[in-house]
Amino acid sequence: MNREEALACVKQQLTEHRYIHTVGVMNTAIELAERFGADSKKAEIAAIFHDYAKFRPKEEMKQIIAREKMPAHLLDHNPELWHAPVGAYLVQREAGVQDEDILDAIRYHTSGRPGMTLLEKVIYVADYIEPNRAFPGVDEVRKLAETDLNQALIQSIKNTMVFLMKKNQPVFPDTFLTYNWLVSGS
Amino acid sequence: MNREEALACVKQQLTEHRYIHTVGVMNTAIELAERFGADSKKAEIAAIFHDYAKFRPKEEMKQIIAREKMPAHLLDHNPELWHAPVGAYLVQREAGVQDEDILDAIRYHTSGRPGMTLLEKVIYVADYIEPNRAFPGVDEVRKLAETDLNQALIQSIKNTMVFLMKKNQPVFPDTFLTYNWLVSGS
Repeated sequence: MNREEALACVKQQLTEHRYIHTVGVMNTAIELAERFGADSKKAEIAAIFHDYAKFRPKEEMKQIIAREKMPAHLLDHNPELWHAPVGAYLVQREAGVQDEDILDAIRYHTSGRPGMTLLEKVIYVADYIEPNRAFPGVDEVRKLAETDLNQALIQSIKNTMVFLMKKNQPVFPDTFLTYNWLVSGS
Repeated sequence: MNREEALACVKQQLTEHRYIHTVGVMNTAIELAERFGADSKKAEIAAIFHDYAKFRPKEEMKQIIAREKMPAHLLDHNPELWHAPVGAYLVQREAGVQDEDILDAIRYHTSGRPGMTLLEKVIYVADYIEPNRAFPGVDEVRKLAETDLNQALIQSIKNTMVFLMKKNQPVFPDTFLTYNWLVSGS
């Protein structure tokens, strides 16, 4: 699938705002892939599809998580986490993307996971720093991403954890485990 | 065992500085126990013995953790965590404390654990806020502990996690899980 086809496909799934974000992630992901030696074509497709399921009804996502035997503890955590694994599932079935590296990059783009691949890191960080993002701490991560993808990833995960902790909200265990994995010398 | 016997017993195990800290924890733990309805006699004994193993050689602690089949992942984390479970073990064998509530309060006073008891919370927080403690954030936890033990505990755990994260150090998983448990409405 080429870029235009992929973009046309996700455009129907997204709001205008989210589509603009997606194009930002795509450009950033390609840049990061080239900078750090990931496959830039896979990065492009993963980025385009990363939020494919973002606007699916919660009930539909819940059913897919249960039916497809995705980790059940997803349902105990913020529904914001659901669109990533559900997205990987739907992108394969509805958009016909079969590449497992790309699907994993979509699947783990919100939670991270211990052992995440270079492509997964690229998509995670691109999603965090694409040019339309504006929140406290993003510029620091942008700066780190100029030279060190791991440090950028660690900082973005820490920002997310501290953001949740300030609100006394639970942190998804995989995200915490990813932090521990990264600082223990991934 | 009465207070004097217990204090005499731990005094031999501790530096002067750590003994003064222990007396501070004892007084604070009794206060918190009375305030929040825990057993103040158990709180007294648990507080006196909480750092019993603090100055044991690392090699000895390592051996005890392995030999007694304590959670093996302890050995992957900061040795600062070891004196708590090893302390519970030694306090039972060497000082003859058999009360499981007291031993658990010693065992989990550094890591916390999901499902921690009222007594465990009292010792954890007392250890954090006793009057000799002076570090950023301690006064906020002292203030919370005047009215809400859970909020004091959440804040102290968050402070610990953020402190470690600022240094890019791993967080002990039980501590993270305790945070999630507490904010999910323990």
